[in-house]
Amino acid sequence: MTMKIGVVGGGQLGRMLGLAGVAMGFQFRFWDPAEEPPAAEVGEHFRAEFDDCDSAERFAEGLDVITYEFENIPSATIERLQKLCDCRPGPLALAKSQDRAVEKEFFQELGIPVAPWRQVDSLDDLEQAFDALGACILKTRRFGYDGKGQEVIRAKAECEGAWARLSPAPMVAEKKIIFQRELSLVGVRAANGSIATYPLVENEHRSGILHKTVAPAPGVISSLQQSADDMMRRCLNALDYVGVLTIEFFEENGKLMANEMAPRVHNSGHWSIEGAVSSQFENHVRAITGMPLGATAARYPSVMLNCIGSLPDHRAVLQIDAAHFHGYGKSARPGRKVGHITVCHEILFEQRDSAAAFETRVSAVESLVLEASQKLQASSTASDHV
Amino acid sequence: MTMKIGVVGGGQLGRMLGLAGVAMGFQFRFWDPAEEPPAAEVGEHFRAEFDDCDSAERFAEGLDVITYEFENIPSATIERLQKLCDCRPGPLALAKSQDRAVEKEFFQELGIPVAPWRQVDSLDDLEQAFDALGACILKTRRFGYDGKGQEVIRAKAECEGAWARLSPAPMVAEKKIIFQRELSLVGVRAANGSIATYPLVENEHRSGILHKTVAPAPGVISSLQQSADDMMRRCLNALDYVGVLTIEFFEENGKLMANEMAPRVHNSGHWSIEGAVSSQFENHVRAITGMPLGATAARYPSVMLNCIGSLPDHRAVLQIDAAHFHGYGKSARPGRKVGHITVCHEILFEQRDSAAAFETRVSAVESLVLEASQKLQASSTASDHV
Repeated sequence: MTMKIGVVGGGQLGRMLGLAGVAMGFQFRFWDPAEEPPAAEVGEHFRAEFDDCDSAERFAEGLDVITYEFENIPSATIERLQKLCDCRPGPLALAKSQDRAVEKEFFQELGIPVAPWRQVDSLDDLEQAFDALGACILKTRRFGYDGKGQEVIRAKAECEGAWARLSPAPMVAEKKIIFQRELSLVGVRAANGSIATYPLVENEHRSGILHKTVAPAPGVISSLQQSADDMMRRCLNALDYVGVLTIEFFEENGKLMANEMAPRVHNSGHWSIEGAVSSQFENHVRAITGMPLGATAARYPSVMLNCIGSLPDHRAVLQIDAAHFHGYGKSARPGRKVGHITVCHEILFEQRDSAAAFETRVSAVESLVLEASQKLQASSTASDHV
Repeated sequence: MTMKIGVVGGGQLGRMLGLAGVAMGFQFRFWDPAEEPPAAEVGEHFRAEFDDCDSAERFAEGLDVITYEFENIPSATIERLQKLCDCRPGPLALAKSQDRAVEKEFFQELGIPVAPWRQVDSLDDLEQAFDALGACILKTRRFGYDGKGQEVIRAKAECEGAWARLSPAPMVAEKKIIFQRELSLVGVRAANGSIATYPLVENEHRSGILHKTVAPAPGVISSLQQSADDMMRRCLNALDYVGVLTIEFFEENGKLMANEMAPRVHNSGHWSIEGAVSSQFENHVRAITGMPLGATAARYPSVMLNCIGSLPDHRAVLQIDAAHFHGYGKSARPGRKVGHITVCHEILFEQRDSAAAFETRVSAVESLVLEASQKLQASSTASDHV
């Protein structure tokens, strides 16, 4: 009766998916090798290594749908899982986003601008890339996150050292772009193909880790939002995607260039828990369970700040009006994302949508509620008389 | 490190307390005799009968604070628990609200108007009460909820039947009040004594069960809200209360009369999850953990509808704009509260609080976040050098 959702990964993204989904009445099972992953508070914890694909059968037992909260899942595990249960998003989205070279080719095939780049499989490749691109960033093709697996190269002489530090992984070199700011877009596609996007948000990183998200991004003109929405739509449709997808962009002179995508809910979408009508977590759950999408509009401007390493004093934060504290249940460790805080503009109700429109919506819900209740009452009375 | 909260009772109120508290980084343990209580999804389930007070030690082990999600807990259990751990609210609040006669006397001592009433311990008492009060409602003093344990008496001849149906429990007879509507007030008191109240809401019952809450209640003038706030403040202070307290009122010609109180989060406060800046669940958790209270203002008008017996079609509800679906993970059964839906007015951001005030708040949070992160970084660098 209750739908049960399997999530590969049990970190804070899984935890927040669980919080959104349990509120709606769903159950969860999280696959995570850690002893006490953050998501274990909101569902069953299935403990196994991610490459232990023989565990797939046990994990999938009784699940209605499987999703992921991170993209670096071994392909053998995904292949096993998709034979057992609907995987949303599908394995194609993971394949396209696990490898930077494949991802850039995917963007380019869809006509989405990316920074000039070269594939790098040797020091020789890298030096040729530097000659062509100038100052560039060398990145491993796989398993990079939070600025890990990256080296900035400003002079040709730095090629050798950067190569040595990152090899033997396959790599790409990207031209170092002078951009005004990083924007990101969270989009969601339902099982029936309908699509919704959140407002573009502005991200600020420190030491390669997201520090702050301003939502909506200030000064975004509608053509910029439309351009981002359009790129999102192309990606979602090309992947026959179901769930939340995030694309990070560089903004350069009013134009967008795709940096990378994440086939999942994203740190730059956490503001939506309080700041949007329906959060990215609720919308991911709605999408993968085949439900219609919720509204993605911002309710008011908000700013999300990541807590990196350790949490600030709980009491001091909560003394600040409209500051919403999120803790992930993790112990302190430098560089670790342990929580976030969203500060919302305070806009209390002074305007309303038309009373008539509101009444219509309330009545529609009221009928559904009463109908279900009466149907049950009738059937149970009938069965009492059998 | 992580605070662990014990909750006696593991129903939907416990579940929603858990959802609010886990989001903030707290852990939960729920005492509930059921096999799979709704709250088990968001914390540890401690399975024991409520009168099995010998289980108290095991339950309290490792807990930082204990609270309740319903008021009918055997006093022997409470007495054991309070010796083991801080109980918030304290046992006095439970004692005052478990018994209708004690509760009415408590209201009266504080100068809070109640409907005329009599204690009823015999059929003779009841007939005398009827002579004094006229049409009245006979209620058991303890264990009544959702209209259970009540009989309406409109004529003296009905006394005998009503008495027979409810005896041998001790009872009260209340004068049947002609009131315009039922309003309720959710208030919260922090450990340091500070108090916040939500806006008065209007409740509509069907077959003795809450059907609909309109928040804020339409047409409440500020003197009425002040009068309710004042009664709430008297109760909270008299009980040296910590946590959320709810008082149900009858409104009669612009005056309030207290009907009953509940020493806990309340069904008529569910709208606050989406409709208020901080929900009743978040504020209860903040209070019992010694944190400052969150703002209780309504963000926009909303209407909460209870799902009684069975849930309406998920998909149909979610197709309605700004309708928020809450399922409690319970199986269908007539008369059972299995979920609720909150429909919010859609008011998107067009007004803002002053940019300067907002910036100040954001900066305050930002400093706290950075400070914590830097402190950890420093201490871990120091320890690396030891």
